[in-house]
Amino acid sequence: MSQSVDSAVDAVRAYIDQHRAAFLDDLAAWLRIPSVSAQPEHAADVHRSAEWLAAKLQETGFPVAEVWPTPGAPAVYAEWPCDDPGAPTVLVYGHHDVQPAARADGWDSEPFEPVVRGNRLYARGAADDKGQVFFHLLGVRAHLATTGRTTPAVHLKLLIEGEEESGSPHFRALVEQHAGRLAADAVIVSDTGMWSEDTPTVCTGMRGLAECEIRLYGPDQDIHSGSFGGAVPNPATAVGRLVAALHDENGRVAIPGFYDGVIDLTDRERELFAELPFDERQWLATAKSHATAGEAGYTTLERVWARPTAEVNGIGGGYQGAGSKTIIPSSAMVKLSFRLVAGQDPAHIEKIVGDWVRTRVPAGIRCEVGFSSATRPCLTPLDHPALQSVVRAMGRAFGKPVRFTREGGSGPAADLQDVLGAPVLFLGISVPSDGWHAPNEKVELDLLLKGVETSAHLWRDLAEHWRHAP
Amino acid sequence: MSQSVDSAVDAVRAYIDQHRAAFLDDLAAWLRIPSVSAQPEHAADVHRSAEWLAAKLQETGFPVAEVWPTPGAPAVYAEWPCDDPGAPTVLVYGHHDVQPAARADGWDSEPFEPVVRGNRLYARGAADDKGQVFFHLLGVRAHLATTGRTTPAVHLKLLIEGEEESGSPHFRALVEQHAGRLAADAVIVSDTGMWSEDTPTVCTGMRGLAECEIRLYGPDQDIHSGSFGGAVPNPATAVGRLVAALHDENGRVAIPGFYDGVIDLTDRERELFAELPFDERQWLATAKSHATAGEAGYTTLERVWARPTAEVNGIGGGYQGAGSKTIIPSSAMVKLSFRLVAGQDPAHIEKIVGDWVRTRVPAGIRCEVGFSSATRPCLTPLDHPALQSVVRAMGRAFGKPVRFTREGGSGPAADLQDVLGAPVLFLGISVPSDGWHAPNEKVELDLLLKGVETSAHLWRDLAEHWRHAP
Ligand SMILES: [Zn+2]
Ligand SMILES: [Zn+2]
Repeated sequence: MSQSVDSAVDAVRAYIDQHRAAFLDDLAAWLRIPSVSAQPEHAADVHRSAEWLAAKLQETGFPVAEVWPTPGAPAVYAEWPCDDPGAPTVLVYGHHDVQPAARADGWDSEPFEPVVRGNRLYARGAADDKGQVFFHLLGVRAHLATTGRTTPAVHLKLLIEGEEESGSPHFRALVEQHAGRLAADAVIVSDTGMWSEDTPTVCTGMRGLAECEIRLYGPDQDIHSGSFGGAVPNPATAVGRLVAALHDENGRVAIPGFYDGVIDLTDRERELFAELPFDERQWLATAKSHATAGEAGYTTLERVWARPTAEVNGIGGGYQGAGSKTIIPSSAMVKLSFRLVAGQDPAHIEKIVGDWVRTRVPAGIRCEVGFSSATRPCLTPLDHPALQSVVRAMGRAFGKPVRFTREGGSGPAADLQDVLGAPVLFLGISVPSDGWHAPNEKVELDLLLKGVETSAHLWRDLAEHWRHAP
Repeated sequence: MSQSVDSAVDAVRAYIDQHRAAFLDDLAAWLRIPSVSAQPEHAADVHRSAEWLAAKLQETGFPVAEVWPTPGAPAVYAEWPCDDPGAPTVLVYGHHDVQPAARADGWDSEPFEPVVRGNRLYARGAADDKGQVFFHLLGVRAHLATTGRTTPAVHLKLLIEGEEESGSPHFRALVEQHAGRLAADAVIVSDTGMWSEDTPTVCTGMRGLAECEIRLYGPDQDIHSGSFGGAVPNPATAVGRLVAALHDENGRVAIPGFYDGVIDLTDRERELFAELPFDERQWLATAKSHATAGEAGYTTLERVWARPTAEVNGIGGGYQGAGSKTIIPSSAMVKLSFRLVAGQDPAHIEKIVGDWVRTRVPAGIRCEVGFSSATRPCLTPLDHPALQSVVRAMGRAFGKPVRFTREGGSGPAADLQDVLGAPVLFLGISVPSDGWHAPNEKVELDLLLKGVETSAHLWRDLAEHWRHAP
């Protein structure tokens, strides 16, 4: 029943070659819709983008394709069941909204007028995320055409959000509302990237996030530092001491209990990270930083991908204008964010951070500690069968070994993991030079088509290797 | 030749009683001039105040009374030489400008329409500083009338500044420009206060001041805390660590060399401070603070009057708005002020603070340390003969023991000490309830007249006890 691997690769490529022009025309049409979720004047465009995508999914063959309203911008949901009820269910996540863009920001062409220069397609959303959503549409058709199937080999579901670039304010509620229909054995997130054009990679996890604001209150109003200085507690000094106490001399977070439950990197994962062609100078240039610094005993990649952090996002208190003002300020504040790794629970972090602040604040200073909504970390073990399928599908498309990365940021994918209880896998073909959120965003056409190929191989591989899963 | 002490006291009081009504009428006329130096719309009023005072000094008998222009508001200078060329020279310092005031700020009557309620005179400037300048005018006349002299017993000079409430931006240059004419053996500053109505005190020194702003620069722009967090130095964290390193666990300033040269409190001074009826609860209420804190081993009064400090006046960096922003900020800053005590040199402090910051800033962070103009501390030893004269004169006026305080703030008086090389003495009769810079500023009439009495006794006492000084 199964074709040989080589002939499958060739068949998929031949199918894609045949349909490449129409595929790119369709994508360009979608990219012309300025679906900027952060700008109210584009609200209608975001709706139009959702309607356009739902219609295109129906045209592609999805028997179900719906626009799901939210209190903000709408999402698109589509479903294409497998004719084998016992097949695994996979949910693809992406987003159809884009970052703001204007020619005047430094674009060489109109951001919403897609243009191919060289082997690149330039447009806002080309890589983040319309291009990476769209490769699944040709992917599933290539899968069907080259396997002779009439339905995908897995129960295929898509959830394409409309507010990702606005912080996904209604996403979790949407997922909770539709949890039954969204139920899946695995989630495939196509909203990330890979190491480089030459080094295809699969991301195995994202860090989580807990954010807090600490406010310290001292004297009931700003008071004179001559009359009172040296004899009363200063909340700006206290906030500095809190910040300094966040880390120990090895760069580890010094809040008691912070590392509770942390799943350490395995030796194998550290080896795999070390195999990546990492150039620290290049990384520093991207970071626009003038040195590396962090937890002792870990490399830069390990620090940003696999270690939890405490960072100061903002600090303030007292007089910040020109010149000087001899006051002891009445209050001071600091905004902290904690990146979390697998095994850490945001609720536990909130509790220990609150306790830690309260025990450290000196007499005469009152504190308020407030947390905003948190994001859980996610991590898929290297030996997870669905992860192995993604690696094999990508390996077939690229014809070279696939390596592993993680993602230091945090995203709404974790909500899917939480609510649906499914592992999250990442399939992205974007490269760091694609310019997400920047002028002249582009996607490499070769890589975009490798995304189509990967998608075409993935569903069959998943079905074959998961049939016997418990 | 000398009257008995008792008869001198009675004679001065009798003279003052006779002239009290005219004295208060004149002061009220001056207080009606809204000489607010900080408000450009009152520039003409500040000039009018200077002209009014110069004319009144001439009327009082000063053979020299001049308005001295500055690039800002004018000062008033007056001189009344002693007929004995060998007499000591004393320069009185005060200011004729006032803080802004408006009825709507919470005044019970018009701030520039002086009114007597009970035994208090309410008006902006009643205590700070017109009332305390003005008591010298009746004082010198009482001195002459009751001693039968035609000139004061000392060479008497007055310098009444017009920009004190605006930070005295041109004062030092003015003093340098006229250093020859201002030359004096001692400076009497009448722009402070005393402990309380029941406890007359003489201030023996003021703290100095050095102020700096430290700016730390990390990444070339704000960068994403997910992508880079945990692996690059964060300037907001670095600024917190600097703040935390300012003090050791005993509340001492931990910058190496900070205490170089500090003249410690003597046991006698500590005893004298301890004799004051200090109520820490009352002090905390005034400070609007909820606890005391500071250098171990010192009382609150010692901390604010006689110990040097490092205070954070302002701190800032990164995102300070509502909600959160997951960035590593590009820069952060802190504004520090150091109160200095006798023996400390602002230039040395600037050097060691700069060195300290530079050695502590981590790799990848660039720092800028900028100092604004500094003020030297001043301190007159308890056994200084001019200080003894002030104490005796005040004791005669009040009929009770005079105790000693210091002032935690810093003022332009230190410029006089620096440029003229003369010790600075403080003669003030204002009390903490007088409401400097606040609505309903007032002066206690009984204390104001004690000021007149003190001034009347002072010049003779100084001449008698300084004749034989080297
Ligand atoms: Zn995206
Ligand atoms: Zn004043």
